[in-house]
Amino acid sequence: MSSIRVTVWNEFRHEKSDPKVTALYPRGIHGAIAEFLASQGFETRTATLDEPEHGLTQEVLNNTDVLMWWGHMAHGEVSDEVVARVHERVLAGMGLIVLHSGHFSKIFRALMGTTCNLKWREIGEKERLYVVEPGHPIAQGLGEFIEIPHTEMYGERFDIPAPDTLVFISWFQGGEVFRSGCCYHRGAGKVFYFRPGHETFPIFYQPEIQKVLTNAVRWAAPVAGPTVTFGHRPQPMEHVEPFLG
Amino acid sequence: MSSIRVTVWNEFRHEKSDPKVTALYPRGIHGAIAEFLASQGFETRTATLDEPEHGLTQEVLNNTDVLMWWGHMAHGEVSDEVVARVHERVLAGMGLIVLHSGHFSKIFRALMGTTCNLKWREIGEKERLYVVEPGHPIAQGLGEFIEIPHTEMYGERFDIPAPDTLVFISWFQGGEVFRSGCCYHRGAGKVFYFRPGHETFPIFYQPEIQKVLTNAVRWAAPVAGPTVTFGHRPQPMEHVEPFLG
Amino acid sequence: MSSIRVTVWNEFRHEKSDPKVTALYPRGIHGAIAEFLASQGFETRTATLDEPEHGLTQEVLNNTDVLMWWGHMAHGEVSDEVVARVHERVLAGMGLIVLHSGHFSKIFRALMGTTCNLKWREIGEKERLYVVEPGHPIAQGLGEFIEIPHTEMYGERFDIPAPDTLVFISWFQGGEVFRSGCCYHRGAGKVFYFRPGHETFPIFYQPEIQKVLTNAVRWAAPVAGPTVTFGHRPQPMEHVEPFLG
Amino acid sequence: MSSIRVTVWNEFRHEKSDPKVTALYPRGIHGAIAEFLASQGFETRTATLDEPEHGLTQEVLNNTDVLMWWGHMAHGEVSDEVVARVHERVLAGMGLIVLHSGHFSKIFRALMGTTCNLKWREIGEKERLYVVEPGHPIAQGLGEFIEIPHTEMYGERFDIPAPDTLVFISWFQGGEVFRSGCCYHRGAGKVFYFRPGHETFPIFYQPEIQKVLTNAVRWAAPVAGPTVTFGHRPQPMEHVEPFLG
Repeated sequence: MSSIRVTVWNEFRHEKSDPKVTALYPRGIHGAIAEFLASQGFETRTATLDEPEHGLTQEVLNNTDVLMWWGHMAHGEVSDEVVARVHERVLAGMGLIVLHSGHFSKIFRALMGTTCNLKWREIGEKERLYVVEPGHPIAQGLGEFIEIPHTEMYGERFDIPAPDTLVFISWFQGGEVFRSGCCYHRGAGKVFYFRPGHETFPIFYQPEIQKVLTNAVRWAAPVAGPTVTFGHRPQPMEHVEPFLG
Repeated sequence: MSSIRVTVWNEFRHEKSDPKVTALYPRGIHGAIAEFLASQGFETRTATLDEPEHGLTQEVLNNTDVLMWWGHMAHGEVSDEVVARVHERVLAGMGLIVLHSGHFSKIFRALMGTTCNLKWREIGEKERLYVVEPGHPIAQGLGEFIEIPHTEMYGERFDIPAPDTLVFISWFQGGEVFRSGCCYHRGAGKVFYFRPGHETFPIFYQPEIQKVLTNAVRWAAPVAGPTVTFGHRPQPMEHVEPFLG
Repeated sequence: MSSIRVTVWNEFRHEKSDPKVTALYPRGIHGAIAEFLASQGFETRTATLDEPEHGLTQEVLNNTDVLMWWGHMAHGEVSDEVVARVHERVLAGMGLIVLHSGHFSKIFRALMGTTCNLKWREIGEKERLYVVEPGHPIAQGLGEFIEIPHTEMYGERFDIPAPDTLVFISWFQGGEVFRSGCCYHRGAGKVFYFRPGHETFPIFYQPEIQKVLTNAVRWAAPVAGPTVTFGHRPQPMEHVEPFLG
Repeated sequence: MSSIRVTVWNEFRHEKSDPKVTALYPRGIHGAIAEFLASQGFETRTATLDEPEHGLTQEVLNNTDVLMWWGHMAHGEVSDEVVARVHERVLAGMGLIVLHSGHFSKIFRALMGTTCNLKWREIGEKERLYVVEPGHPIAQGLGEFIEIPHTEMYGERFDIPAPDTLVFISWFQGGEVFRSGCCYHRGAGKVFYFRPGHETFPIFYQPEIQKVLTNAVRWAAPVAGPTVTFGHRPQPMEHVEPFLG
């Protein structure tokens, strides 16, 4: 089997403007993610907001099996044309993994059809992600929960469609819960939203988080399913007597 | 309990341009639907594409519990501003019932996040809609299936998210199947897609179809649920020790 | 509309053997629940384990629209024959609301097909139930969450099938989460599992909890849907040419 | 990756008593299935009703990743003890693929919690299975539909819980539809029900059907997910102040 081709997209702004983030993710969040994915044998590349076409040309997308998306402060700067291009590719089968603050990205909102809004707080509290579907491939190799010692809180109500499969539910020290691992089929593509991953915490270096993302890439990779066709089918496959209304 | 306020929206173009449709629906499809809904005790009004703001002013929407949507040949003429207004109202709790060719309306596609495309054929063949969730309120008062003697065919693959609840599956004489009654929660609102209802067939006069739409209005009507709030929650509800990173 | 007929079933053992429980629920948990349900206009009766046939004769079940079930220490004493009778009635359309420790009842396990096991702790900690589907009728009249000051904890992994609709997720002070409000269609019947309600806490006197149960009765009440038939259909509805193998 | 271990279970009675079936499946339905699965690289064995413990000893089950189940005329002869053993293994992670008339097996009914009843007719009519979730791994390598020229009909209402994922819907020449490919998570295990496969038709020799079953084995194979634990957790993970009730 040829290897899965992953493109890690990052807004890549915090890392340039906030020394704390630069220190934590010196090669950018995309760099940190791409590194551990490459070590898993995926064919990995990166793309960022400030590249031409945000690095997501039609050619790049056509050669991407799974796109990972991290954005936060600059969702509005992502061009509608690129969003439409990504949207079309997802419906055609490309996997999409949306990370953390990517909940508010144009592409995730377009795919969900809802505001994707939530409650949040940034005081470095504890989070525990419970696996609620232990037979799901994204839970492979995990314990019963993942503990993140310090993180930003996201709280319900998370304004999303009920996921096709809910894999993780988070507990937060400050008193909230959150649907943290959400699987969707959209068109021929698969979408996974995964909550952890704030820019000021070393969450993408945590082995269990890397494990989830590795599993998610495998789950979201395209399936060589039917070539779906649409439109006019003037000839019925079975005999239908003429109707003269 | 005060009565449910229904607004029946219709593109209302075929009825003006095609004598066959005019003869079938002399007061428009919206008129035919509004009439039987009113007879069920709903507070019913209509709105059409060629009215100012398509008849869907903010005030009309604010006073609508359930919006019914029929469109076909002029989806592109519906203004994006009105679509955004309807979208927002659905997420805030207004019910939306999308009829037949409304599958391709801007509002349905925006809520679903997919193309909502399908296969179709217009030779007046037979359809049978099977109830697959007999305990669902939309199945109230029905038999095991509804037979429509002559209709337009819609065939799978229907490019929608898997419904939260699938109520009807259609059989077509020419050889296809279709997910014909699909329930969704989106935001605080409920959406029901119902397949039957072509402009050249007297389907909206069929008692079982009227029964389904009556049931669907009751199911889709808003619930006085929680006032959902979003955004920053700087103060945790529980004690969290300061984190100094 | 005639009123919904509710039967509140209770094991009714703790109340007889534990003075603390007797003091809290002097007329039994069933008595406390039946009282507030009656005040909502439901036609309410009770049944308990130590009555003949556990109070659930065929006649009682035939005249029950929604059965509420509380059990804890004596699940094994419920006769398999009565369980089979209740099971059959649920599949035929009767609503079933399973409360708290009823997760381990024979009837709930038979309907779910899984162990329905979970983690638990009884130290009187705080619980917060978040509404995650605000447009669902069971969320009517609630705030964004319900807080229970002191309760028994139930923690994930809760070994149930993913609910058709997940309405509540609980946060617990001691560090766990739980899917606390779970809706299922089974046959023509509807099942709602609701977590709160331990015998040593006054939870069934809490107005929000009573609100949820009142809503749940309305949601679970039978729908006059199709009379479903099964079995041999030797005659096809459409012409099929003879096949001579 | 070590190969997936599949056990194909067959009632193996029709093949002994009906010369037509013997001619069609000379090595039994299990033999035919095991043969093509082995050719796909799975480690395959068979088991049948008349073997001791129906060939499903604890040791066989402990060494089975995916169990395939075909039964029809002798469901009642399968011992409850063996059913309980299989049930436990599924909840612990073993995949289960239930074929055709296996819908009425004890194990499928126990896992579903419903009657699993349906309508049927045996006149050799045509069936078309439409893929409705084209991105699902079970749809890999298929066209938009599978056509079976002559088969037994199964018609809705199929009394099952709504599947977690619905992959196929069938059209039948005689006028019915059916949910023909249904995926479920149950415990840590995965269950796939697949409708085609009557003993008097050469359906298990049809390449697309073999493709589906091959895909289903891969999908249903166990995931090395969390070791789920249950029961008393007297010590909270977080501080909880003593409650003195």
